[in-house]
Amino acid sequence: MIVLTFSCPDRKGIVASVSRLLFENNANIIESNQYSTNSSTNPHFFMRIVFEMENPAGFQSINQRLADFAFIFNAGFKMTDISVKKNAAVFVSKEDHCLYELLWQKSSGDLSLNIPCIISNHEILSTVAKSYDIPFIYIQHHQNSYKHEDAILKEFQKFNVEIDFIILAKYMRILSDNFINAFGKKIINIHHSFLPSFPGAKPYLQAYRKGVKIIGATAHFVSEKLDDGPIIEQDIIRINHGDDVNEIKRKGKIAEKLVLVKAVKLFTEDRIIEHDNKTIIFE
Amino acid sequence: MIVLTFSCPDRKGIVASVSRLLFENNANIIESNQYSTNSSTNPHFFMRIVFEMENPAGFQSINQRLADFAFIFNAGFKMTDISVKKNAAVFVSKEDHCLYELLWQKSSGDLSLNIPCIISNHEILSTVAKSYDIPFIYIQHHQNSYKHEDAILKEFQKFNVEIDFIILAKYMRILSDNFINAFGKKIINIHHSFLPSFPGAKPYLQAYRKGVKIIGATAHFVSEKLDDGPIIEQDIIRINHGDDVNEIKRKGKIAEKLVLVKAVKLFTEDRIIEHDNKTIIFE
Amino acid sequence: MIVLTFSCPDRKGIVASVSRLLFENNANIIESNQYSTNSSTNPHFFMRIVFEMENPAGFQSINQRLADFAFIFNAGFKMTDISVKKNAAVFVSKEDHCLYELLWQKSSGDLSLNIPCIISNHEILSTVAKSYDIPFIYIQHHQNSYKHEDAILKEFQKFNVEIDFIILAKYMRILSDNFINAFGKKIINIHHSFLPSFPGAKPYLQAYRKGVKIIGATAHFVSEKLDDGPIIEQDIIRINHGDDVNEIKRKGKIAEKLVLVKAVKLFTEDRIIEHDNKTIIFE
Amino acid sequence: MIVLTFSCPDRKGIVASVSRLLFENNANIIESNQYSTNSSTNPHFFMRIVFEMENPAGFQSINQRLADFAFIFNAGFKMTDISVKKNAAVFVSKEDHCLYELLWQKSSGDLSLNIPCIISNHEILSTVAKSYDIPFIYIQHHQNSYKHEDAILKEFQKFNVEIDFIILAKYMRILSDNFINAFGKKIINIHHSFLPSFPGAKPYLQAYRKGVKIIGATAHFVSEKLDDGPIIEQDIIRINHGDDVNEIKRKGKIAEKLVLVKAVKLFTEDRIIEHDNKTIIFE
Repeated sequence: MIVLTFSCPDRKGIVASVSRLLFENNANIIESNQYSTNSSTNPHFFMRIVFEMENPAGFQSINQRLADFAFIFNAGFKMTDISVKKNAAVFVSKEDHCLYELLWQKSSGDLSLNIPCIISNHEILSTVAKSYDIPFIYIQHHQNSYKHEDAILKEFQKFNVEIDFIILAKYMRILSDNFINAFGKKIINIHHSFLPSFPGAKPYLQAYRKGVKIIGATAHFVSEKLDDGPIIEQDIIRINHGDDVNEIKRKGKIAEKLVLVKAVKLFTEDRIIEHDNKTIIFE
Repeated sequence: MIVLTFSCPDRKGIVASVSRLLFENNANIIESNQYSTNSSTNPHFFMRIVFEMENPAGFQSINQRLADFAFIFNAGFKMTDISVKKNAAVFVSKEDHCLYELLWQKSSGDLSLNIPCIISNHEILSTVAKSYDIPFIYIQHHQNSYKHEDAILKEFQKFNVEIDFIILAKYMRILSDNFINAFGKKIINIHHSFLPSFPGAKPYLQAYRKGVKIIGATAHFVSEKLDDGPIIEQDIIRINHGDDVNEIKRKGKIAEKLVLVKAVKLFTEDRIIEHDNKTIIFE
Repeated sequence: MIVLTFSCPDRKGIVASVSRLLFENNANIIESNQYSTNSSTNPHFFMRIVFEMENPAGFQSINQRLADFAFIFNAGFKMTDISVKKNAAVFVSKEDHCLYELLWQKSSGDLSLNIPCIISNHEILSTVAKSYDIPFIYIQHHQNSYKHEDAILKEFQKFNVEIDFIILAKYMRILSDNFINAFGKKIINIHHSFLPSFPGAKPYLQAYRKGVKIIGATAHFVSEKLDDGPIIEQDIIRINHGDDVNEIKRKGKIAEKLVLVKAVKLFTEDRIIEHDNKTIIFE
Repeated sequence: MIVLTFSCPDRKGIVASVSRLLFENNANIIESNQYSTNSSTNPHFFMRIVFEMENPAGFQSINQRLADFAFIFNAGFKMTDISVKKNAAVFVSKEDHCLYELLWQKSSGDLSLNIPCIISNHEILSTVAKSYDIPFIYIQHHQNSYKHEDAILKEFQKFNVEIDFIILAKYMRILSDNFINAFGKKIINIHHSFLPSFPGAKPYLQAYRKGVKIIGATAHFVSEKLDDGPIIEQDIIRINHGDDVNEIKRKGKIAEKLVLVKAVKLFTEDRIIEHDNKTIIFE
């Protein structure tokens, strides 16, 4: 099952060109979505196509011709066999709910990915990792961020698999620009508020003090600016005056874990296209 | 702005064929969605394409060639200019909330349709119709259903516009198979429960007695079997033990009006394809 | 039907004292809720009791003894006959959705209040007011805010009924501290975002640019700081990448009107106690 | 922390009597809710009070006097120290999501209960039980229901703790009236549909065939009639035409586990009063 995502400045004939190309290579389109920001001054076109090929040899041929199209249309494209699982490094600190939800959905087959390692700045969740037979790498952060992050990158190099993306599953450290650039691939974070409300530290305490009636969680790609990368998914939970900070935290954890896993699922199925610090989600 | 819906047994090349056809006729695809029930034994393909043409003459040419494709692919298709508003006859009885929501969204431009007439078996809502300058036709139902329905069909023939579909906006009569067949076009009904729970009479009373914690509303196409046609849209509202039947009704009305108008909006934008007593909704 | 709200620093015996007092005056308690912030360092107690009395003379007696209790407990209390409708001045500008929802729910009996006047800085909604037989007072704002607000307060004095509260139903002017203090009673505003996200101008444009996946609406009491008074009610609506600013506005209007009317309903039933710039809502 | 629930035919003075009694025994009321079905012909009164006592000796005294009141008012009441955890036997078959959510919320402290044993008619989930150090009792069902259920009851007698209630966490056997009566205490079940829609077998397949746009889960007390006991909690998840039965199942599992754990939490905190085959929930 191949997923092709394709985006470029909008113009006529893109769908026709790409779909003919697939047809000529004997691909069978299973699902296809296009979207165009035709209302704006610089209309942009986005497309996601899922297709099957009986003859895998066609993959190379399609890829080559897509590269030609991409040149003509000034497009970005990506073609991935999503039956090959992506490798995610999961970063945690002390809280276990997001990690458990990831592991449960992975083991039940609802989430299709490999987790070659769990990395933490605390030792407490090592038993969880062990019970799922996943290497747990404790990397202390007491000296400084630089050494901590450097140690992580060194661990990555030791693996015989390539890490395709990082999941920050309640990892309570801020990653530096250095690390983000050195890793160079996507990092998905869960922030425990309904961004842009309450960025930064202690969002539940902020929510309690403000007296909001609804709290939320936001999964987003990590960018160099804190809690400001493209939003992938959000959800909310209703609270009321009777909920103190602990109860708000408790309710919030449910939203956090579901939103994070939803975002990870969208990513593993190549349903997300980034554009203009926002996301196009083809569900 | 033209909307094309197209559905047929699934096979390779449909998207390629149709999108090339549009490209060759200088149509600009704005939005396009395909969906295929590839998991089933008889895979079926559904497509909705929105496109623009600078030269309206192309419409006929496209239509002709689509008819050819439809023959080859054993397909059903429909091509509509959705900038031309559809004409809806709105049927009401005594309750006004669905009617008001339709009229408000219509007048605010959020819902794009014409309402050539409001038809009712009661006189009470005539003032609402009057305040919006819409002909209100009272047709009593005291003799029998047959005469009542016959009178409605006769009214339809008097109009100089064609009625494209009927909206049952809390019309508390059951339309006969005779009427449904004689009218021959789509009829959208709002049922005040979360179907298939509580079909038939007094769903809120049924819900109250059952002690459910959530009530709902269901917009569906009318079929010959009561409250059993293809479901278009549903939504719910949370209730609790403190809500008596009147309070449940009050809360339910909010869901009813929003669900009905949502379904009507989907219909006016040709986003619904029926298949197998279910609906494919391209949102 | 009398509603008593009572709040004070928490201590033993409050419920016993108040409920005995009601019992001795032959009041029948229909509904009763207490809540205490016992987790904090300065625990505070809140209570709402709904009761009936066959002999209205008891009202004065209860009121007197409650005043005594309030003195002992250092409490604030309010006792209101909610079968007497409150008088609301509704302020609007150009948008009609909140006004229509208020008027529809009022006329259907779902919302129990009087609307002695609709005040606007534009003339466009005068026809709506007229169709509901409510005086519409146009007060231009071209000179300056001071004169505009002064003119409003002068209009209030002309009425032979007292205005109990103001509903800002998409009134697009910021009321000055002067006006807020001069009016001296509650003002309920609807802000078209999920506060504290996107306060101030054009929240939907801000939401669009930020790429959030959920938008919201917030009803709150007006305080001297813009969009920062105690939050009464919030709700949200899911959006996606395909929604441009106009579509976000359209979807948002549904949330706005429902949230505002919900907040007004809570207020008319005396279900809101303010404390510490937050609200306790007894639903 | 003591929770008192009290219900009886409605009359004046109940709150006053009970709250005075608590005050005289030096109890400090933390939370209190009353509700009365005053709209019906046989008004009934329900109350839940949470209080603390410095001197535990007062418990007996209060209990005795409540028994007197209960006699006078023809009431049922229950007084429980909810700081003492209840013992739940969890019944499972092959699916693990509800079990995992229970175990995770228990171990994170969000759910306060003991699980002395997990009982199953399959062996597959024994490793989950083992990883949480909970005795797993496999009781085969191949002979007949009677022997299977009899074996369960015999296991219960072997424990040195008393089982306070049973949680059916996707236990795919129907318990007989015999068993229900012999156990004699509360049994909470999760049914994977939005009851009363789709009772009985394969609700997700039924939902798929019907083409509903929303599915749900229902937690209810088990009664002798299948899937018809008092509903405790329900929630829903939106689906669309693109979801096949497997995807509906996958989405549904999220609702199932959250609804079940929510119901169990309400039960452990004595927030549920049953009346007339419905539940009063004091949240």
